[in-house]
Amino acid sequence: MPTADFIAKCIRQARGLETADLVLKNARIFNLADGSFIQGDIAICGDRIVGIGENYEGWAVLDCSGMTAVPGFMDAHVHVESSLITPYEFERCVLPHGTTTAVCDPHEISNVCGPAALEYFLDCAANMRMDLLVALSSCVPATDMETAGAAITYEDLRGFVGKPCVAGLAELMNVPGVLNLDPSVLAKIELFYGNIDGHAPLLDGKDLNAYIAAGVCNDHESHELEEAREKFRKGMTVFIREGSVARNLDELMPLVTIENAPFLAFCTDDRNPKDIAENGHIDGMVARCLAAGCNPLAVYRIACFSPALQRSLKYKGLVAPGYFADIVLLSDFDKCQVASVICKGRLVNDELFASRKPEPSTEIFRNSVKCKKVTAEDFRIVSYKIEMPVIGIRELSLLTDYLKLDMPAGEKKADADRDIAKIAVLERHGKNGNRALGFVHGFKMQKGAIASTVGHDSHNICVVGMNDQDMACAVNALIDAQGGFAVAIDGQVVGLQPLPLGGLMSDRDYKTVHASSEQLQAAAAKTGCPLESPFLQLAFLPLPVIPFLRITDKGVFDVANWSFV
Amino acid sequence: MPTADFIAKCIRQARGLETADLVLKNARIFNLADGSFIQGDIAICGDRIVGIGENYEGWAVLDCSGMTAVPGFMDAHVHVESSLITPYEFERCVLPHGTTTAVCDPHEISNVCGPAALEYFLDCAANMRMDLLVALSSCVPATDMETAGAAITYEDLRGFVGKPCVAGLAELMNVPGVLNLDPSVLAKIELFYGNIDGHAPLLDGKDLNAYIAAGVCNDHESHELEEAREKFRKGMTVFIREGSVARNLDELMPLVTIENAPFLAFCTDDRNPKDIAENGHIDGMVARCLAAGCNPLAVYRIACFSPALQRSLKYKGLVAPGYFADIVLLSDFDKCQVASVICKGRLVNDELFASRKPEPSTEIFRNSVKCKKVTAEDFRIVSYKIEMPVIGIRELSLLTDYLKLDMPAGEKKADADRDIAKIAVLERHGKNGNRALGFVHGFKMQKGAIASTVGHDSHNICVVGMNDQDMACAVNALIDAQGGFAVAIDGQVVGLQPLPLGGLMSDRDYKTVHASSEQLQAAAAKTGCPLESPFLQLAFLPLPVIPFLRITDKGVFDVANWSFV
Repeated sequence: MPTADFIAKCIRQARGLETADLVLKNARIFNLADGSFIQGDIAICGDRIVGIGENYEGWAVLDCSGMTAVPGFMDAHVHVESSLITPYEFERCVLPHGTTTAVCDPHEISNVCGPAALEYFLDCAANMRMDLLVALSSCVPATDMETAGAAITYEDLRGFVGKPCVAGLAELMNVPGVLNLDPSVLAKIELFYGNIDGHAPLLDGKDLNAYIAAGVCNDHESHELEEAREKFRKGMTVFIREGSVARNLDELMPLVTIENAPFLAFCTDDRNPKDIAENGHIDGMVARCLAAGCNPLAVYRIACFSPALQRSLKYKGLVAPGYFADIVLLSDFDKCQVASVICKGRLVNDELFASRKPEPSTEIFRNSVKCKKVTAEDFRIVSYKIEMPVIGIRELSLLTDYLKLDMPAGEKKADADRDIAKIAVLERHGKNGNRALGFVHGFKMQKGAIASTVGHDSHNICVVGMNDQDMACAVNALIDAQGGFAVAIDGQVVGLQPLPLGGLMSDRDYKTVHASSEQLQAAAAKTGCPLESPFLQLAFLPLPVIPFLRITDKGVFDVANWSFV
Repeated sequence: MPTADFIAKCIRQARGLETADLVLKNARIFNLADGSFIQGDIAICGDRIVGIGENYEGWAVLDCSGMTAVPGFMDAHVHVESSLITPYEFERCVLPHGTTTAVCDPHEISNVCGPAALEYFLDCAANMRMDLLVALSSCVPATDMETAGAAITYEDLRGFVGKPCVAGLAELMNVPGVLNLDPSVLAKIELFYGNIDGHAPLLDGKDLNAYIAAGVCNDHESHELEEAREKFRKGMTVFIREGSVARNLDELMPLVTIENAPFLAFCTDDRNPKDIAENGHIDGMVARCLAAGCNPLAVYRIACFSPALQRSLKYKGLVAPGYFADIVLLSDFDKCQVASVICKGRLVNDELFASRKPEPSTEIFRNSVKCKKVTAEDFRIVSYKIEMPVIGIRELSLLTDYLKLDMPAGEKKADADRDIAKIAVLERHGKNGNRALGFVHGFKMQKGAIASTVGHDSHNICVVGMNDQDMACAVNALIDAQGGFAVAIDGQVVGLQPLPLGGLMSDRDYKTVHASSEQLQAAAAKTGCPLESPFLQLAFLPLPVIPFLRITDKGVFDVANWSFV
């Protein structure tokens, strides 16, 4: 909170009795209070805006002629780990896109390393320039249907209550736990009632009423318009998600109206560096809404003001006195073309990032792949059943289909003609050495295998392949690299992106990671897989909280019936 | 906060596994998330809504066929004392009008009795059925320009931080104190930064920037549209006020649009029981906006949702799961005709009020008029100056004009032909016996005098009259009654409304107070005064924070120049 001395300084600078710390000269402010434009100066004292609509003198002056100033953007829900980089690098990557606030849920790395991962994220957040708010991972492990590397208990969570940068309880994926009154879930809810993020794909009717009445405030899992409509009519803030796999913006865009704006937000959830480089971040979502003809006042409110208010984050989302000086300067308002970004009163550039305290140590995240090397034999499937459950993937969606396909009795192999690949999940946290095998439809691979230590949410090794040798080769490459993504063809590793931090994050800068991702993708394409993001698509197949058929280290799982097949 | 047991009960009732505590059957819900209507049941568990849009069974069922359900209303800023009744009676008066939430500032009674008055209001609030939030009076005494009965210091305020029902710092009227960096004002600001109510009539430009940058969030003192527009464009929530004297609704109604709704609220500030009986409360403001053709979604959002969100009051302002079951059932939606009110899940009726704990003791508020009897001689004015400062009142406005009128040298008397009356303010807290005399234009009295122990904000005795004898008679009547309003004509007390609690509040029920107010008004009319609310108009004349000319116990005060004349 500001001190009396700082408040006095703000008053003096606002009144023009003292030179402002920074003045954005001749800006055109897009005023989110009513949609009007205000021409003039923006005076900034420390991290706060202190004056608009008047002439001001500043120690530093930035000429903003021809630019439109809008409030910094907010990513309402993001897993930083999905960008494959650390929080410090994430900020370097997204802050220049105008994302000055993000609510992250470190549940990927928490599933590998437990409460220490939350501590690490909070340490990072305390030293970052943007506002990174950390929602506390609620479901680690996500379910009993998988083996995670660590658990976060009620007692762990209680220790984080009231700490700086804590944003409440992160997405409460265990919907059955809520509806069936699981005591451990209820205890967590009691702790964070009213500050709980939701995750409730396809939930509706009385069960949705119950989930919301339990104190869950928002949801980012609506794929269909009517689903989203029911949720926000029942008071949830609907986060419109545009991730690298789950892309809901086009479908949900009709919601973006001035009437609905108080109940909407934008989020990326899981977005990789390639996607951010090509399509931007929240700025890209804003641009697409504007291009589609959405009301600009609605769009820009949704981009920060509305979710900040719903989350009781004060002084965020307006260019107005008292508000944090998080300002995006646009060279083209209608296209949301970001020219410069001001973050808490400072220009975003290399110097700003260089001024941060050193990044907290990542040593605890290393050496997280604790399983034995495998052989082709480990992937062999022999069964005399004819009808087999097969996971059907849907491109650019997290949902999968529960297919039942006939396969010859005896040894069951992948079949390129029918687009059936083998899939396996191998426990890699040194707990029990579980291995599960199954089949998947939709990768359209012709040969080889791809493997990943990113496998939501327990992040065991998952591998898809057309033959057992390449599956073993790809998995062993990941064990050697202590995590990452690998492609093997004909017994050779043809692509490898190391992610040595928890098997989830790189220790390199975001540009290097982006380049490495492109090489990896090129290697994956050699298997014949035409998917845009084959590794992300693979990484979500072990997630037992999303309908309909998944695979974990414990077996193939029927989500609708909440049981193993 | 809800317990895990209660949350579990909510979940069971929401799912329909257990009979709901109360079901509002066949209601038409006006959904403030998007302006749609939802037909169906509203299931309530305890004080919360748990289900909408489905069929529910309830232990208690209220047939709501033909009714429209909207969220309970909020009075964003009110001085309960101005209704001349105690908080318990205030609730009996306004809750049936659908006002389920109010943010009050007990600064009238605080000026008489100090921090004990805040304690009393918090005690009342803790036991009331509606949500009465107590904003802590920031300026007691309001200024150094008057003598109050008590002071509330920084240390006093600090003792209230974090207590239940505390809503932050109440209207920060000492604008010069803010702008000129008064250390005691800055200390209070530091304590409540970002949770501070404003009071800044006519403030604009850089000074308004400074006032807002100091952490003040809202304002209810805009009389003109452009003034209000500048304030909300700078991020303030503008409270549209319709008090018994200060009435801004017609002037500010053009602001009521769906775009502006997040930054608007309704408030009554100072409204007497007669006014509430005749014009309703927030329901009456809603009805007038609807009749004038305002967008219903905007109007109903402003009536609670928007100000609750801006104030970070969770779960208020929607009829949706998880939200407090504060519901107004309307027999006529377009006219905002209230048929029944549900407050925290209970039907509002005599039984509900009878179930409250006994009212906290009001003994500390008695015997507050501590001044000596007066004689006609005390009101004699002799001066050889010709041009005299005269307070010019404006009907239905708190603003006054600074008039300069010529009066004959020597003894200066009231002059009915020129509409000049005498005015006096007498210190009544037993501090110094100050008396100030002056002249006022606009009461149009022909004879007699009216006197009041309500005299904002120090609540000294103020009296207006056409002759010294009647002024003395009216004042002495108030001393005998230990507070209230009096009318004297020809040496006789012809009207008296006792307000023995601090000289501000009655110890009777609101209907008796209303009847007594009507008798008083009839008596006041006998003086020839045609004003609708002569006592309220009188009561605001000592208020030195409102432009342009006022009178306190210390003398006649020029607000613009912040000095005595």
